[in-house]
Amino acid sequence: MAKLTSRAEDYSKWYNELVVNADLAENSGVRGCMVIKPYGYAIWEKMRDELDKQFKETGHQNAYFPLFIPKSYFEAEEQNAEGFAKECAVVTHYRLKTDPDNPKKLIVDPEAKLEEELIVRPTSEAIIWSTYKKWIQSYRDLPILINQWANVVRWEMRTRFFLRTAEFLWQEGHTAHATKDEAIEETEKMLHVYAEFTENFMAIPVIRGIKTPSERFAGADETYCIEALMQDGKALQAGTSHFLGQNFGKAFDVKFTTKEGKIEHAWGTSWGTSTRLMGALIMTHSDDLGLVLPPSLAPIQVVIVPIFKGEEQLAQIDEVAFEVQDKLKAKGISVKYDNRTDNKPGWKFAEYELKGVPIRIAMGARDLENKTVEIARRDNLTKETQPLENIENYIEELLSTIQKDIFDKALQFRDTHITKVDAYEEFKTVLEEKGGFIAAHWDGTAEEEEQIKNETKATIRCIPLNNELEEGISLITGKPSKQRVIFAKAY
Amino acid sequence: MAKLTSRAEDYSKWYNELVVNADLAENSGVRGCMVIKPYGYAIWEKMRDELDKQFKETGHQNAYFPLFIPKSYFEAEEQNAEGFAKECAVVTHYRLKTDPDNPKKLIVDPEAKLEEELIVRPTSEAIIWSTYKKWIQSYRDLPILINQWANVVRWEMRTRFFLRTAEFLWQEGHTAHATKDEAIEETEKMLHVYAEFTENFMAIPVIRGIKTPSERFAGADETYCIEALMQDGKALQAGTSHFLGQNFGKAFDVKFTTKEGKIEHAWGTSWGTSTRLMGALIMTHSDDLGLVLPPSLAPIQVVIVPIFKGEEQLAQIDEVAFEVQDKLKAKGISVKYDNRTDNKPGWKFAEYELKGVPIRIAMGARDLENKTVEIARRDNLTKETQPLENIENYIEELLSTIQKDIFDKALQFRDTHITKVDAYEEFKTVLEEKGGFIAAHWDGTAEEEEQIKNETKATIRCIPLNNELEEGISLITGKPSKQRVIFAKAY
Repeated sequence: MAKLTSRAEDYSKWYNELVVNADLAENSGVRGCMVIKPYGYAIWEKMRDELDKQFKETGHQNAYFPLFIPKSYFEAEEQNAEGFAKECAVVTHYRLKTDPDNPKKLIVDPEAKLEEELIVRPTSEAIIWSTYKKWIQSYRDLPILINQWANVVRWEMRTRFFLRTAEFLWQEGHTAHATKDEAIEETEKMLHVYAEFTENFMAIPVIRGIKTPSERFAGADETYCIEALMQDGKALQAGTSHFLGQNFGKAFDVKFTTKEGKIEHAWGTSWGTSTRLMGALIMTHSDDLGLVLPPSLAPIQVVIVPIFKGEEQLAQIDEVAFEVQDKLKAKGISVKYDNRTDNKPGWKFAEYELKGVPIRIAMGARDLENKTVEIARRDNLTKETQPLENIENYIEELLSTIQKDIFDKALQFRDTHITKVDAYEEFKTVLEEKGGFIAAHWDGTAEEEEQIKNETKATIRCIPLNNELEEGISLITGKPSKQRVIFAKAY
Repeated sequence: MAKLTSRAEDYSKWYNELVVNADLAENSGVRGCMVIKPYGYAIWEKMRDELDKQFKETGHQNAYFPLFIPKSYFEAEEQNAEGFAKECAVVTHYRLKTDPDNPKKLIVDPEAKLEEELIVRPTSEAIIWSTYKKWIQSYRDLPILINQWANVVRWEMRTRFFLRTAEFLWQEGHTAHATKDEAIEETEKMLHVYAEFTENFMAIPVIRGIKTPSERFAGADETYCIEALMQDGKALQAGTSHFLGQNFGKAFDVKFTTKEGKIEHAWGTSWGTSTRLMGALIMTHSDDLGLVLPPSLAPIQVVIVPIFKGEEQLAQIDEVAFEVQDKLKAKGISVKYDNRTDNKPGWKFAEYELKGVPIRIAMGARDLENKTVEIARRDNLTKETQPLENIENYIEELLSTIQKDIFDKALQFRDTHITKVDAYEEFKTVLEEKGGFIAAHWDGTAEEEEQIKNETKATIRCIPLNNELEEGISLITGKPSKQRVIFAKAY
């Protein structure tokens, strides 16, 4: 097993190597599309199941809408169409036929041209709101609280594992409401669901905020987001929740009779997270040895490795190890006992470090004698010897401790990488030398935002919710400002 | 709520009305694609979760492969390409642009033409075996046991809810093995997983068998299937498991070194079930009042409906009903207490009958006095009064009874609709007048099979596994035959 490139040497290379070597994903023969391998998919499944549970607990139901969107639907909401038309997969034909010049080849059958082209969904507002039109007549039909787990396609030119791929997996919530207030409440509620999931489950601290108009979702009146900070000082948007106003209600003519008998357009929200979260997970916690997983997301939480000479010793260890395995399983802990004889313990140690297994238990002949085991933590690489008796309770608590410690470490890194800056030159220096989030004043115009972006590649990640108000002057134009916003370079 | 067309009057109309009125699915604006509504999706989720559990228990892992398949991959396995090329969605472009003649319209950007067309997967053997080539070098890399939950597209010209839609949801297992025997064992194992799931969980009896060569999956050496019988006497293929031989191993050059140091092509299997199972579920159990769901698949297993006059009475019933609800929930039973005041009990009864809720508990003022409840079964429409005390235990047992009774009823129907027939004229008569499975002798040729199909629309559904051997002569050619095969008209 080759060592990974270190993060210090080349962060981006480290990331790609980790993704491939830890069996999370690999490139496919299809441009920009990856294969999510079983180990990576198992982590995604844990994320999906937990989010799904939280959506259902907040009153949402799952449904499934078509993969294809007729071009004309796409045109209905201008801003939205504009935002997605430039990078979409277009289905124009519905049949292949044998090439008359070469019977081993297939060609597109020109006679099977679609009357109207179909777009592979880049997001589903258009197809879903065209359906809601049929479902909504009265205030009694509202709210509609629906989520969809699906694949979507955006024809990205430069792709990276999980962070930006032509096809990706995601969930998209689409809700319709009778009032503006209710829709805004929903938008904010789902932002908090995302934030709590990201922090409590993925151990990734996030800033909750709203986007500036130029960073908004195409078709939204307001975009809320959670922003995480990666180890290399770049930000990563980990989830968005959009207040759509009546934009889609109007574009798709979704009207309802209010309690008072008036006719109004429905108010909407949409909110999404994707396999991008896998990238956030990797770049928040992992190290030069490989993946570091919070226990709540680890497909294998504990691995037991026997240290033995000869079959007899292995048989003795087996006996105790299987007992420990059973006790841990009884507590709902996922555990693997790796007693394969074709790889040395050192090889196994490296393998499970690469894969981010939170706890490794090593058991050797001396441990058997002393009725102890050696416990190694993946997150901080510490080792200790513990009595075998009641080891399952110790492990259970240790998993909680690790979950908390991983979050605290990430939080400390994040908090020490929020820099208040008041001058543009200092802004540039901090951005280059330290990176991270920069809290600075902004004059509120798209022009200043654009200039900063062009000159430094930093964008306004968000205006934090419940932001502290503070008089100041903006970075470039020196105009008065009432609050700091969060800048960063971003993934 | 309008009554459904009766099954006797028009089975196909009844089916479509039931799907729409019970909120399972509806047509979308996209040709041949349906919207799976929350209630229908909740049933599918239960099927998916149970199957997923069984796949994992038999050693399989989930992964995710690209939606798109380059045309050239598709050409690699000739039979497979031939089978699917005639009905596939073809992506030819990756961008739209504003129509210069009409700024409100979008057109395909001719400059964004793909060098190689992409096919939206109709099935994933090609893309997956092209990946396995990278994963498999040695016998140590085998077996690979992977499953994928995904959407697939087949450009069907005539579509029907769940049974045949352009896009559908499914799972596809794809495994690779070192030996032929092991691959056949896997193929059979997964057929049995499907059969046991269908019978124990969906309460649908099935015949396990193998397909004739002409009904085989394109690219398989052998196709195993489970065949169910619908109420209208037509068969429905509920799942297939394919032994692929070395066909894909050879087509994608997937070679490995055996234990003995030889180089061989890998052996493969693939197996799938889809949202088609929803159609089987509906057409096996439901009646003229609507859906009948086996308890194991019911999103709501028990509904409690209060029968009341005035708010005071409702408040009294509420108190008892919420208690019953809590006791049922504590047993893991999904229960809904519908105390809405805007609909009458009769309306609610009809609504939950339409939706197939297995048990309805009605509670009125007299029930409160007598400490009883009225229990109605959806499957056989019987009612009875039961003491309120320990009602949760009674309900728990009743759910098991219903699950069993629904299966037994379907089994009885199926068994009385397998007719042994020895003459072609009788075959035609039984097919027209009674329908169902016909067990008849066949001469083993594609010609006789084809002639019967053309003349009667009946196909050979399968050659049952562990078939009883019996001397006979075939229907048309009168050639000798050693076993009966199962004919039927099919969905």
